[in-house]
Amino acid sequence: MRKIDLKDIEDIALGAALLGAGGGGDPYIGKLVAMGAVKECGPVTMLDPQEVPDEELVVPIAMMGAPTVLAEKAVGEREYETLFHMVSRFFGREIYAFLPIEAGGVNSMLPIAACARMGVPLVDADGMGRAFPELQMVTFTIGGINASPMALTDEKGNCVIFETVTNKWTEELARAVTMSCGGAVSVALYPMTGKQMKEYAVKNIVTRSQRLGEAIRTVKDCGEKTPEEHFMEFSESYKLFKGKISDVLRETRGAFNLGKVMLEGMGEYKGKEAYVEFQNENLLACVDGEILATVPDLICIVDAETFVPVTTDALKYGKRVYVTGLKCFEMWRSPEGLELVGPKYFGCDTDYIPVEERYKGGVKNV
Amino acid sequence: MRKIDLKDIEDIALGAALLGAGGGGDPYIGKLVAMGAVKECGPVTMLDPQEVPDEELVVPIAMMGAPTVLAEKAVGEREYETLFHMVSRFFGREIYAFLPIEAGGVNSMLPIAACARMGVPLVDADGMGRAFPELQMVTFTIGGINASPMALTDEKGNCVIFETVTNKWTEELARAVTMSCGGAVSVALYPMTGKQMKEYAVKNIVTRSQRLGEAIRTVKDCGEKTPEEHFMEFSESYKLFKGKISDVLRETRGAFNLGKVMLEGMGEYKGKEAYVEFQNENLLACVDGEILATVPDLICIVDAETFVPVTTDALKYGKRVYVTGLKCFEMWRSPEGLELVGPKYFGCDTDYIPVEERYKGGVKNV
Repeated sequence: MRKIDLKDIEDIALGAALLGAGGGGDPYIGKLVAMGAVKECGPVTMLDPQEVPDEELVVPIAMMGAPTVLAEKAVGEREYETLFHMVSRFFGREIYAFLPIEAGGVNSMLPIAACARMGVPLVDADGMGRAFPELQMVTFTIGGINASPMALTDEKGNCVIFETVTNKWTEELARAVTMSCGGAVSVALYPMTGKQMKEYAVKNIVTRSQRLGEAIRTVKDCGEKTPEEHFMEFSESYKLFKGKISDVLRETRGAFNLGKVMLEGMGEYKGKEAYVEFQNENLLACVDGEILATVPDLICIVDAETFVPVTTDALKYGKRVYVTGLKCFEMWRSPEGLELVGPKYFGCDTDYIPVEERYKGGVKNV
Repeated sequence: MRKIDLKDIEDIALGAALLGAGGGGDPYIGKLVAMGAVKECGPVTMLDPQEVPDEELVVPIAMMGAPTVLAEKAVGEREYETLFHMVSRFFGREIYAFLPIEAGGVNSMLPIAACARMGVPLVDADGMGRAFPELQMVTFTIGGINASPMALTDEKGNCVIFETVTNKWTEELARAVTMSCGGAVSVALYPMTGKQMKEYAVKNIVTRSQRLGEAIRTVKDCGEKTPEEHFMEFSESYKLFKGKISDVLRETRGAFNLGKVMLEGMGEYKGKEAYVEFQNENLLACVDGEILATVPDLICIVDAETFVPVTTDALKYGKRVYVTGLKCFEMWRSPEGLELVGPKYFGCDTDYIPVEERYKGGVKNV
């Protein structure tokens, strides 16, 4: 158990944005929401997963929708209270703690705001260990935990509760409502017991985000190493490419941000070309026609100077960036995991090969 | 209080299809569902609105979606039970009675099936006195009654409860879910007290449907009158046109059946042309460039021989039909009513003028 205060929030947002793998929203927006709530209501208690009693009700809380819309729609104060009461009323008992459903600039932050405002603890765990675009893409689905009853509310006060026959149906129906509500809503889903959470969640992800954020913030304090070496080491990243963004193709479809970013090589990659495809999150990185990483491994794009993560909606012509690959949470590499979030699910015509095997340098850039 | 048995169902379906004004679905489908339930579970008790205690919970039940889809999707047996339990659970008390939300071949019948299966009475009242395409278009909206909490379920077992800030938002969100569920779902909405129902419902509409159905079935037994005179008299219809369908333009958009039927005049209308525009229901009838009736008055198309109503999805080239106009329920002619269901809401560029004023014959064809 420890307290999450204002100074922690900045680092968590920064590190979670890296784990967001291009998705999960703008950490600046997320940070403002969480800091506003903590300033008003005081710091949040964060529990280690093991500190949650087995029989208590814990509920992930998140925003659903296209990250580009999140930046334009207000995130209110009463949404968390509404969700808390909808879920508590459904089960006839109070929620013991919230947790994030994914890492990412916004979805790592909203549960902190919710915990501050409702006075409940946050659990140091999530359901992805990264960000993914669809709500059935969580370790909880592998564990047979239902996404529903799922509570959804928008900033106008509309409320919807879904009870569906599969988690894929929850996604279908909630996505349709999200689009009708203007493209972004607040949700509470995968209500579960402490025991289920301990068995299937990605543990200590908030703490990992915070450490990554601290390290990015102080990336220049790296002693004898170059900042690049330092970053690849502490983030356990495989360097896939370094280059300048030469084009960004975008489309908003079905409440998703889809697209492809084109890159021209710099430094040792001079003369090479690369692209990264994304659906909210980065899906596939390809250099000179060779695929170097795919989902569910994390493909991260970071600023070439500051190593600050660049979300897919912030990709801009001329920006100089690194493209890096990080190993995903082990459960995603199982057959059940790859069925949910493997490259084929996203329409990429390739089998999943772990990033460390695809990585032809043979060694990590440390 | 009286019993609704198999022989009643046929006439109710036929008469309700006339009041459906082209919408409300195929009475053949509706009839099969209601008859199946009554055969299996016994006749239904129908209450006069005045027999419902003021404080009891009564709930309209219906199918939502495009009528053309209704004919292709199964209507299950457990949907009513699911809806009954969703609503009862929400309020912490049991539903006292169901009622139809609209007249129409399907939506007059499903509440009968629901009452038979759940052993609760049917109320002889609805919220439209005809059919309309959107769910906020009920007299209950004029009465300030909320559509939500609204329960929705599909044949797969997906369940959704909506609590919205306006009835228009209920329509928006439920329509989006309906489309995601394949275009047709079962719903329970506008939960209300007996008192509210007595104040705002269109009363004795099931009985009126049954009388109309009986009269259509026996339209040839008309003594000295012609069947045409007889039909116009008992149905209180204004004869607007008689002709042959020369074309039908159709489009399914946003879970609605939209279109326009073109007609060439017959008999005293020879040489004239007419068209009727529809959105699930008939919206506007125009003869030789002159508008003769618009929503919210009922525009009905019936077979020229049998006087059986022709729903918009059954309009076919070559069919010989009458186009008739019926006065709508008085509450629809108020400013609040016309705001909800007047011609302008449906994009028709005309003010509402009551059918009896537009009717240039000056006299009803009796």
